[in-house]
Amino acid sequence: MISIQAAWDLIENSVAPGPDQTVRLMNALGCVLAEDVHCTINSPPFDKSMMDGFGIKSADFASGLRTFCIVGELMAGHTSQHVLQSGEAIQIMTGAPIPAGVDAVIQVEETKQNGSDVEITTDRLIEPHHNIVKCGESMRVGETLVTSGKQLQPQDIGLLAELGRHEILVRRPPTIAVLATGDELVPVDAEPGAGQIRNSNEPMLAAQIARVGCQPVPIGIARDNREDLHAKITQGLKADILCLSGGVSAGKKDLVPSELARAGVVEVFHRVALKPGKPIWFGVLKGEHPRYVFGLPGNPVSSFVCFELFVRAAIRRWIGLCDSTPRLQQAKLSQPFSMTSNRPTLFPSAVSRNGSEVWVTPSLWKGSFDLRATIESNALAYFHEAGEYREGDDIEVLQLH
Amino acid sequence: MISIQAAWDLIENSVAPGPDQTVRLMNALGCVLAEDVHCTINSPPFDKSMMDGFGIKSADFASGLRTFCIVGELMAGHTSQHVLQSGEAIQIMTGAPIPAGVDAVIQVEETKQNGSDVEITTDRLIEPHHNIVKCGESMRVGETLVTSGKQLQPQDIGLLAELGRHEILVRRPPTIAVLATGDELVPVDAEPGAGQIRNSNEPMLAAQIARVGCQPVPIGIARDNREDLHAKITQGLKADILCLSGGVSAGKKDLVPSELARAGVVEVFHRVALKPGKPIWFGVLKGEHPRYVFGLPGNPVSSFVCFELFVRAAIRRWIGLCDSTPRLQQAKLSQPFSMTSNRPTLFPSAVSRNGSEVWVTPSLWKGSFDLRATIESNALAYFHEAGEYREGDDIEVLQLH
Repeated sequence: MISIQAAWDLIENSVAPGPDQTVRLMNALGCVLAEDVHCTINSPPFDKSMMDGFGIKSADFASGLRTFCIVGELMAGHTSQHVLQSGEAIQIMTGAPIPAGVDAVIQVEETKQNGSDVEITTDRLIEPHHNIVKCGESMRVGETLVTSGKQLQPQDIGLLAELGRHEILVRRPPTIAVLATGDELVPVDAEPGAGQIRNSNEPMLAAQIARVGCQPVPIGIARDNREDLHAKITQGLKADILCLSGGVSAGKKDLVPSELARAGVVEVFHRVALKPGKPIWFGVLKGEHPRYVFGLPGNPVSSFVCFELFVRAAIRRWIGLCDSTPRLQQAKLSQPFSMTSNRPTLFPSAVSRNGSEVWVTPSLWKGSFDLRATIESNALAYFHEAGEYREGDDIEVLQLH
Repeated sequence: MISIQAAWDLIENSVAPGPDQTVRLMNALGCVLAEDVHCTINSPPFDKSMMDGFGIKSADFASGLRTFCIVGELMAGHTSQHVLQSGEAIQIMTGAPIPAGVDAVIQVEETKQNGSDVEITTDRLIEPHHNIVKCGESMRVGETLVTSGKQLQPQDIGLLAELGRHEILVRRPPTIAVLATGDELVPVDAEPGAGQIRNSNEPMLAAQIARVGCQPVPIGIARDNREDLHAKITQGLKADILCLSGGVSAGKKDLVPSELARAGVVEVFHRVALKPGKPIWFGVLKGEHPRYVFGLPGNPVSSFVCFELFVRAAIRRWIGLCDSTPRLQQAKLSQPFSMTSNRPTLFPSAVSRNGSEVWVTPSLWKGSFDLRATIESNALAYFHEAGEYREGDDIEVLQLH
């Protein structure tokens, strides 16, 4: 039995980053960039008015001039050939390029128009560049803007659009097959008979997969016999990652590890000192296009926790994030907590804010069968060892969303 | 000009929750539940073994008996008719129903099998129900499990699957049209001419829309003339919410408010005391199926911020979340900050953790044109008034993801 950290290290060392793909910028939200993006334009591309108003020479204003002769108007998207002379003003709209001779824009609310004249009604100091953004003030040709490995947010997509990058190279997210195993399972829309339960792990794992931006591939239920397991494992190995649930503990029908071995999947680890989720199994099908296989324990909370701890680590590594291990953060325990397990425990918990401080409250959770207790949980609190924890103690937490 | 809070209140009062729809559970991640879910099963549905091992009578063990006669084996998904007698053990797998007469399961690692006998090798105290989960221990028929208004997470989906809820009633997320306006805009894949820029707001807003689980409907670019604006506004009003960008400030070509009025959209507010984003416009097209229209300012950061502040509030209200106003949280300022604007400012910033405390660092941001500064930002820091803020000051922040 290995430690959680050893399992993370083995995943990090076993999983190779997946291939890149070109996607349309409109579909790139949440994708991990697979190229460094260099700036190919100056932004703004020209000196630009930040206001609707009148372009003048600031020196005119400084010399006391307040009434100007309007020589034209300039809309955004248009240009002016006129070179502004002293005493002149040009009406200009937000986003329009600044004409030659203009070095300040007075916003329209601070002016009064009288026929072909405009009077400036403000007494504030008007310095050169007033309400003008200079060409390249936001970014300049040649700068590195975004680096490979960044997960694209809406504002990155806006920036890439400014550069005209309507297509972009990203990591392809892995496809992830979900295969539940066990004679006791019936599909979610079926009525369980005696000794049976519904296959709730499939939709739950599919949702966990979708939440991290990957494509779930549901394979259904494999019965506890070698033929069915073999056929469905073969099907599941077409995906980049295969998540089985059930069949990995010490039972007579726990055929998953041996059937995976028969399919050529080499075990990397089996059993982690962890609660819930001790029986977790991980292996690799080597080859030009390697596949990664997780045998998750069948109890729903074990399956849930092992996905968040280990499958997500593999996904992070596959899509090329620098640090593949889950990001644990600190939170203060909101109430005393007695931890009785002799195994490190990821306890379903609720994280909340108290001012600028993050607090964590363990849920009323009864064990790996008790999925109900997790529905008010948004985090897993990581208790490394048995003992009495006090209110205010610093606890590591893994936030779930 | 109204305050940010007044704008939120007007949105809350103007937007009616949208319709419900039935979705497949597999597609329900992130949807807002539109029904209370009551428990229709006991979970577990029967007393169940939590371990692979041997079922015995705990009284036998308490009386000193250590060797038992194996009378059968029971897999998960199967049942046994045998009533266990004193001195007998039945081999039982994780998840299998507990047969009559059994009240404790000894895990296989604590046993040694000799032909048809099994010897228990542990000396620990074995109490009744050892390694047995009782029927209904996680949830019972009739309990309310999840209430209307909850945004469904993977564990909720697992729980609903346990109940056999393969379909579920949720709020339909709104469709949101995006229409950029301005003669200066060219499509993202085109080369801008003199005085022109690319339409970067469309992909950025589409990504903001997709990030909150809604469907973006890009309408393209409307030119600064009444005919084109009218045609594209008509098209955009087929969506539940229409976001225009540009054309709402004080310029001569700012035709958006008057063209919206012509289309029957009634103004609710125009201009909010806010930086960036002062010219924001909001209105409602009343009717059996009302439409909501935002005129976002054209500068990229203004558009971005107004979406997060106001469009998201409307979406939250539409999908029936109890509290539609954005959830501001506290963070400690990591460095002194001089706030010079006379308008309340939402400043692009980076939130990070220092132990269990949340800190916020304003980005090097130059103004509403400067989208580049936002790409390392994951939050907006809300500075209510001008002044000198000190390191450690409590600041309200709106986290972006």
